[in-house]
Amino acid sequence: MADRVFNFSAGPAVLPVPVLEEARENLLSLGETGVGIMEHSHRGPAFTAVIEEAEALCRELAGIPDNYRILFLQGGASAQFFTVPMNLLAPERTADYLNTGAWSKKAIAEAKPFGKVHVVCSSEDRNFCYIPHGRDFSDGAAYVHYTSNNTIAGTQFSGIPEIPSGGTLVCDASSDIFSRPIDVTQYGILYAGAQKNLGPSGVTLVIIRDDVIERGNDDLPALLKYATQAKAGSMSNTPPTFGIYIMGLVFKWLKQQGGLAGIDESNRNKAAKLYAYLDQSDLFQGTADSDSRSLMNVTFVTGNADLDTKFIATASSAGLSGLKGHRSVGGMRASIYNAFPAEGVDALIAAMQQFEADNT
Amino acid sequence: MADRVFNFSAGPAVLPVPVLEEARENLLSLGETGVGIMEHSHRGPAFTAVIEEAEALCRELAGIPDNYRILFLQGGASAQFFTVPMNLLAPERTADYLNTGAWSKKAIAEAKPFGKVHVVCSSEDRNFCYIPHGRDFSDGAAYVHYTSNNTIAGTQFSGIPEIPSGGTLVCDASSDIFSRPIDVTQYGILYAGAQKNLGPSGVTLVIIRDDVIERGNDDLPALLKYATQAKAGSMSNTPPTFGIYIMGLVFKWLKQQGGLAGIDESNRNKAAKLYAYLDQSDLFQGTADSDSRSLMNVTFVTGNADLDTKFIATASSAGLSGLKGHRSVGGMRASIYNAFPAEGVDALIAAMQQFEADNT
Repeated sequence: MADRVFNFSAGPAVLPVPVLEEARENLLSLGETGVGIMEHSHRGPAFTAVIEEAEALCRELAGIPDNYRILFLQGGASAQFFTVPMNLLAPERTADYLNTGAWSKKAIAEAKPFGKVHVVCSSEDRNFCYIPHGRDFSDGAAYVHYTSNNTIAGTQFSGIPEIPSGGTLVCDASSDIFSRPIDVTQYGILYAGAQKNLGPSGVTLVIIRDDVIERGNDDLPALLKYATQAKAGSMSNTPPTFGIYIMGLVFKWLKQQGGLAGIDESNRNKAAKLYAYLDQSDLFQGTADSDSRSLMNVTFVTGNADLDTKFIATASSAGLSGLKGHRSVGGMRASIYNAFPAEGVDALIAAMQQFEADNT
Repeated sequence: MADRVFNFSAGPAVLPVPVLEEARENLLSLGETGVGIMEHSHRGPAFTAVIEEAEALCRELAGIPDNYRILFLQGGASAQFFTVPMNLLAPERTADYLNTGAWSKKAIAEAKPFGKVHVVCSSEDRNFCYIPHGRDFSDGAAYVHYTSNNTIAGTQFSGIPEIPSGGTLVCDASSDIFSRPIDVTQYGILYAGAQKNLGPSGVTLVIIRDDVIERGNDDLPALLKYATQAKAGSMSNTPPTFGIYIMGLVFKWLKQQGGLAGIDESNRNKAAKLYAYLDQSDLFQGTADSDSRSLMNVTFVTGNADLDTKFIATASSAGLSGLKGHRSVGGMRASIYNAFPAEGVDALIAAMQQFEADNT
């Protein structure tokens, strides 16, 4: 097998090696069953144990109370962009959206056909390079939606945004879920596509409060109704069994890292090193405002597109892959999610130092 | 690793051993990339090669012409139950449905909110144990929908149903797709959840003709519009990359089996042996009418529920797993999809002979 490289991909992204190794051992036979993990009936005892363990570990890691359901759905965060308003919005009602990046904009666009959409704040004036502070909430919004980490712009909310009392907070946490301790009770719905911090693409984690499920619209396709999926324990139809299995292994690995507090410390250390290097570099500069920097996606440029391209190629030859920024913004992006190893950050800094020495 | 058992599960179901072995080799590094198959960006060169090969093999196997798109979507066949009418039906229009089983009924129920639904024929009068011959088509239906193989009842259309000239045929082929040669040009849409004949759960194959895409309704969530997914090459958002990879390996394996003609011969031989045994047995009887029997799901009973339970337990102890019939009908079901080995059918027949000798 080829040596593993440092994979800075924004998603699908690097997974913990012990998770991949355990999955590899169970592809032809899950434990002693004689049936591979992908081949088990979703209603049989072996997979039932898999999904129950995944849910139990998820609850334990994030301290999720009993009045929340944990759903394993399909379609990625993008499917939630319309599923949330389809369930919770109505033509005469308003939903509040914080517009902090390309994914917020997509969520806003998908909500509009279902009701009124009010933009509470926006950082589009400076290409989403900061988290805006002002808020202009509407009265009695059906819910308030935000994107906790903006993968493309490299910004992140440092805490949970305050919303009007009694409001329902909905969060797309695809790119920073379970990267730090989280108070789930502040949320009506917390959702995340798995392919950054939780597992492979093709499974979406949705953590949703019972009363939010109950007030959902009724006249919807069965699969798109949170109530159907909650009642069926994510088995309204065949769930993405392998993705759920991997997510459970990732939860187990996270627990071994000291849970969310442990991984938070590791993530802070990785990001701090990288930003400290950027702050003193004469060649490389971070693109996000200092108070809005993401601990997951570190975006930076040289200020010269040709030099950016040269750096990406140089780094790639040195076993640092996936550093190219999103095609909409260019530059570089180092995605350093939970499973990204600290040594990879050291290797990137060393490569930047060398490149800086060679090119100034 | 434990010895593999004979897995008669109706889905998720047995996969070819060479497919599982190749996947196992590429979990930590896809080829020489140093990045595991689940960890590759869906927009990078490695995964681009994976999805392009999967599509090319799919076209080659089934002789799919250029005016058809091949989409790799999420949500299983159940998501197509509402996506089809959402795209093609309208309040003033009628869609025709052939009602041949539990999955047809679900498709009918999900279509009703989008327009008029007309049931062309039904075998519900005898618990779906046959494929009805009479047809009562409506004039100018938006489309005609049928389920080619009925997993629960163990029945299967022996050929493609004739529909009024100029009509658009839509087929849920989840449980018999690519089990025999197929004339794709007879279809407007042919769709299948992967977890029976194509791969793991969590990826849906949709083969759709260009003009059917073009006449789709416009005002829909982006992900649910066939036009969006076709234009984006199934990458409107992050696709289920691992599931697509496995599907590509299954296509490669199918080609090695002599393509659809080769696998058809193997499937016919397996089913013929099993039905021949059932037809001469004094204890076991097939539940589907002879002219409607499925080559994929062989359903049978002893006529005594206690004896059924005893047989399932006996078989399970002998390494024959997943023989319990669907919870809605009871009895036994042997799902013998493409990847199910012929030796497993021989082992089942031997177990039935022994059980019959011991219990009569």
